[in-house]
Amino acid sequence: MKHVNDLLWHPDMSVREYMDKLASIGFQGVELAKAADIIIRMKKEGVKIFLTFTSNMVTSGLRGFFAQVIESGLVDAIVTTVGGIEEDIMKAEGEQFMIGNFSSDDVELYEKGVNRVGNLFISNESYQHFEDVISKHLLACYEKQPRWAVSDLLHDIGSRITDRQSILSQAAKHDVPIFCPAITDGAFGFHLYMVQQKHNDFVVDVVQDFKNILFVTSQDDKKGLISLGGSVSKHHALLACLLNGGLDYAVYLTTAHSTSGSMSGASTNEAKSWGKVKDDSDIATVIGDVTINFPLVMIKAFEELSSQGFLSLETEQQE
Amino acid sequence: MKHVNDLLWHPDMSVREYMDKLASIGFQGVELAKAADIIIRMKKEGVKIFLTFTSNMVTSGLRGFFAQVIESGLVDAIVTTVGGIEEDIMKAEGEQFMIGNFSSDDVELYEKGVNRVGNLFISNESYQHFEDVISKHLLACYEKQPRWAVSDLLHDIGSRITDRQSILSQAAKHDVPIFCPAITDGAFGFHLYMVQQKHNDFVVDVVQDFKNILFVTSQDDKKGLISLGGSVSKHHALLACLLNGGLDYAVYLTTAHSTSGSMSGASTNEAKSWGKVKDDSDIATVIGDVTINFPLVMIKAFEELSSQGFLSLETEQQE
Amino acid sequence: MKHVNDLLWHPDMSVREYMDKLASIGFQGVELAKAADIIIRMKKEGVKIFLTFTSNMVTSGLRGFFAQVIESGLVDAIVTTVGGIEEDIMKAEGEQFMIGNFSSDDVELYEKGVNRVGNLFISNESYQHFEDVISKHLLACYEKQPRWAVSDLLHDIGSRITDRQSILSQAAKHDVPIFCPAITDGAFGFHLYMVQQKHNDFVVDVVQDFKNILFVTSQDDKKGLISLGGSVSKHHALLACLLNGGLDYAVYLTTAHSTSGSMSGASTNEAKSWGKVKDDSDIATVIGDVTINFPLVMIKAFEELSSQGFLSLETEQQE
Amino acid sequence: MKHVNDLLWHPDMSVREYMDKLASIGFQGVELAKAADIIIRMKKEGVKIFLTFTSNMVTSGLRGFFAQVIESGLVDAIVTTVGGIEEDIMKAEGEQFMIGNFSSDDVELYEKGVNRVGNLFISNESYQHFEDVISKHLLACYEKQPRWAVSDLLHDIGSRITDRQSILSQAAKHDVPIFCPAITDGAFGFHLYMVQQKHNDFVVDVVQDFKNILFVTSQDDKKGLISLGGSVSKHHALLACLLNGGLDYAVYLTTAHSTSGSMSGASTNEAKSWGKVKDDSDIATVIGDVTINFPLVMIKAFEELSSQGFLSLETEQQE
Repeated sequence: MKHVNDLLWHPDMSVREYMDKLASIGFQGVELAKAADIIIRMKKEGVKIFLTFTSNMVTSGLRGFFAQVIESGLVDAIVTTVGGIEEDIMKAEGEQFMIGNFSSDDVELYEKGVNRVGNLFISNESYQHFEDVISKHLLACYEKQPRWAVSDLLHDIGSRITDRQSILSQAAKHDVPIFCPAITDGAFGFHLYMVQQKHNDFVVDVVQDFKNILFVTSQDDKKGLISLGGSVSKHHALLACLLNGGLDYAVYLTTAHSTSGSMSGASTNEAKSWGKVKDDSDIATVIGDVTINFPLVMIKAFEELSSQGFLSLETEQQE
Repeated sequence: MKHVNDLLWHPDMSVREYMDKLASIGFQGVELAKAADIIIRMKKEGVKIFLTFTSNMVTSGLRGFFAQVIESGLVDAIVTTVGGIEEDIMKAEGEQFMIGNFSSDDVELYEKGVNRVGNLFISNESYQHFEDVISKHLLACYEKQPRWAVSDLLHDIGSRITDRQSILSQAAKHDVPIFCPAITDGAFGFHLYMVQQKHNDFVVDVVQDFKNILFVTSQDDKKGLISLGGSVSKHHALLACLLNGGLDYAVYLTTAHSTSGSMSGASTNEAKSWGKVKDDSDIATVIGDVTINFPLVMIKAFEELSSQGFLSLETEQQE
Repeated sequence: MKHVNDLLWHPDMSVREYMDKLASIGFQGVELAKAADIIIRMKKEGVKIFLTFTSNMVTSGLRGFFAQVIESGLVDAIVTTVGGIEEDIMKAEGEQFMIGNFSSDDVELYEKGVNRVGNLFISNESYQHFEDVISKHLLACYEKQPRWAVSDLLHDIGSRITDRQSILSQAAKHDVPIFCPAITDGAFGFHLYMVQQKHNDFVVDVVQDFKNILFVTSQDDKKGLISLGGSVSKHHALLACLLNGGLDYAVYLTTAHSTSGSMSGASTNEAKSWGKVKDDSDIATVIGDVTINFPLVMIKAFEELSSQGFLSLETEQQE
Repeated sequence: MKHVNDLLWHPDMSVREYMDKLASIGFQGVELAKAADIIIRMKKEGVKIFLTFTSNMVTSGLRGFFAQVIESGLVDAIVTTVGGIEEDIMKAEGEQFMIGNFSSDDVELYEKGVNRVGNLFISNESYQHFEDVISKHLLACYEKQPRWAVSDLLHDIGSRITDRQSILSQAAKHDVPIFCPAITDGAFGFHLYMVQQKHNDFVVDVVQDFKNILFVTSQDDKKGLISLGGSVSKHHALLACLLNGGLDYAVYLTTAHSTSGSMSGASTNEAKSWGKVKDDSDIATVIGDVTINFPLVMIKAFEELSSQGFLSLETEQQE
């Protein structure tokens, strides 16, 4: 059994070294270090990996980081909510979001045309700009064909985006499908509706996309899930894997607790009752804010996997 | 300004009296009492009310209570996740869920064919029974027409259910639409896919349903939201109201906190930055388990609204 | 195994009936119902019961309810933090606290001389009044003897308070000791210091009080704990029972989770590793706000225990 | 207003650089970066700094890190709970704690003589060893004098400990007082009682220690608080500063939320209603696990403060 070891600082400590030390500090630090190890193990073993996240994480500066994760070849499929797709497109168009405050005067913000997501602010202008852009994208899609599976539609849009830090662009470039089971749950939905008003044969085929997500993996593949936050995105990836025999590895990073029976708070332990995960060493649930915890986990994984040749990231141009 | 008053017990205290006292006890008790008052006010003022909940609440014994809320005429539309629809149908078919334990041995449960949702258990048999039933429902729908908006499909299924405690049945009977923006995110999705495999023209039209939810209210209506838990169901109702000018009243019951910027934890305060809610007396966010808190709020509202003729519930036969 | 049962409302539902129904609803509702059952069982079996709470609960309207719990004869000892003692005395002197708002402008409150505890407000005047009163109490104590165990000091003060809704008064009247291991952690501490400045032989003997709390129970007694919130008060009661062989029953009501390894969030399960609690049916951890949950649990227990003659509460005069 | 910036990984990222990037990512990451900046600012301005933590953090590998923080000269006083003092002494004696699991079989652990604190394990042997050691310490103290203020007693014990990673040792060496308002709330209390049984004039004078903590700062000093977790330790430092005019800076790292009105969850905003903190740029509340977040904050502060000559840490020998 592993001992608790005292952390001691020395100058120029790297994130990687910090993560190594966390494994013997305790509480959520132990879980965080374990999460990184599981991700590294998954990749080395050729597991098919789902990454899921919620839209608030795309509001944050994790957006470019997700694009980099996709570019690195780490993941095989993405599941997210539609807000994240909208905001990725806004940012690809150059819109800037702002760092604000959790305890802002919300009536005042409303009057200024500012929308609050936690301590981040999005201006009405960014939404208006999005509307122009998405209309053109959707019409371009409709002109190709009237009936679209969601992930195909998102691939088509992504293939027209050139921003290297765009999730949709990198996903299209690397043929990583993006699933979004509630595609109408945002301004995106409104614009789909506007197209359908003019073109009644325009159909977004969510049932077809269910087939697509099923076919990402097979019964024979080893399957892994990296789930950030909860919601439909987490559940949808779990479900797709369950129908193919269940997960072999699971890493959950969330702020929700299991005591309410919600999907957001459901632990990797609970997942064992639904599938074939058996060994505690293959699952980790880390309670805490994803903006802090996910980069820590992934930087550790990036360092180790790229130095051993499991990922080939070109980082020079990005800085 | 209201004073804090000491609570004192006397024999045979009713829930209604307890709720009245909570308003001057403090902390979340104050918010809970306020939530009930806002719901009562909404109904008396003829506000169009959305009720949203997540599927774990339908796993719980709140399921029949939601049916009763619909039957009472309190709400104008429902938004939920597909797991709740599946489990409502299972229960309408007589399936029984069990009270288990949060710290069960999940590997053992898996081997017994038991699936855990927090401290509730669902057997594999219940899912198998559901599969037979839903297949028949979906084929019956397809035979009527190939293209269905989600809420129309759920109305059609609900109209064939006779269980008085069924959410779908009561919603169909009282023409309360049920929206489910991520309709494929469950076993339901798999069966939609099975139908489409045989009948390629079978389409579940989520875009059409976006129009349907928009038309539940208009710019002129007063609009209110009772949101239980978070997720897509909460966001979808918010969005539909926002596009019609924003909410006038909002009551959130959730276990999530606002510190992560998630939708589940987003407070009614944050909602002010997105819409037209202005007055603190018209919003309440109650942090706590919905199984305890929602019945308390609704029992208070039922007592007051039914005694004043705003609801007409027949409760005799139900006991 | 118990089934999940749908909740159905009928007019005039009592708290007792509501609590009975909660046992088959799910999630924290199940735990809450179990908590009430354990308390009832404890009392019927003649278990020695510790009740612990934190000072914010005395800020709230639970203060008179705690006094009533003591008056009822349910509990054998209290452990709390000194803020609760201060506020009990303020309220006994007629000071009124106010219902405010969690998102107040705190700089403005400061300028108005208002101190915020969550959504409750205490004015500077209440503290000033307390200072006059406590000085007299402490001098009166010193005149009797220079060295005091904490619980003896609090008993002496309580015996001079006549407010029926006072925790200290009821505890003194019914010889229920109040332990407060961090007695200096408040304005109370400052006034102890003022007395000691004048009278250097004035000693508050916390070590002597450790003996007192040890002697509340013996190895032979069955021991139970009702812990509200966390902190030193929870830990101190646990410790006292552990040194006498460990708890037989434990009920924790808290908002904290076990994931940080804190005492506030430590579950009744964790307690099993420290003591002799063995059976899951004898422990319950309920996550949620104590202002809502504790009265529900205790009303159920009061109704059942008083109707069966295990408690003799005179409630007539109180209303 | 600051913009959200996408995080991009490059090889060999240091913790310091990561912390700089966090400031423009969002949610709790922003608060964490702000916390580091405030600590750096405090030190540069010669603020008197209180550091408070709870005992579970000493159970973890933060223990040696706290000793290093004291050795660095960053803080002027410590407030903690007695469990942390006990465990610091155990570890100084060579006892090893183990990394376990949150979902252990607690009855089995009990039977093996293992005590669980979250996912950390302490053996009964460690406690037994502690008992021998503490008895000798306390008798040595009693032989010097019969009446001790708590912080003087802890200084005396610390001066006899030679482990460089010991909190008590470093605090004694650098004349940083350790306050522990609930000194009897642990095995330590039991041993104090054993000494008093033999020597009735042995007194632990908590009132005298109230004077000591008051005199750490004066009305004229700038005062700052770094509070980890909640409980009496947080409140006691707040109180001591409040009585000297209030805090100028405050950094809270906690897992508790403000919605229950508890001290653990009370935010730095709430503190504004009690004191003189006015400017949002001088306070930060970070929600999350301290094992992950405190080292991140302090490594950033160490790097910056030591490179600019505000701290002089000898780190060579420690590795």
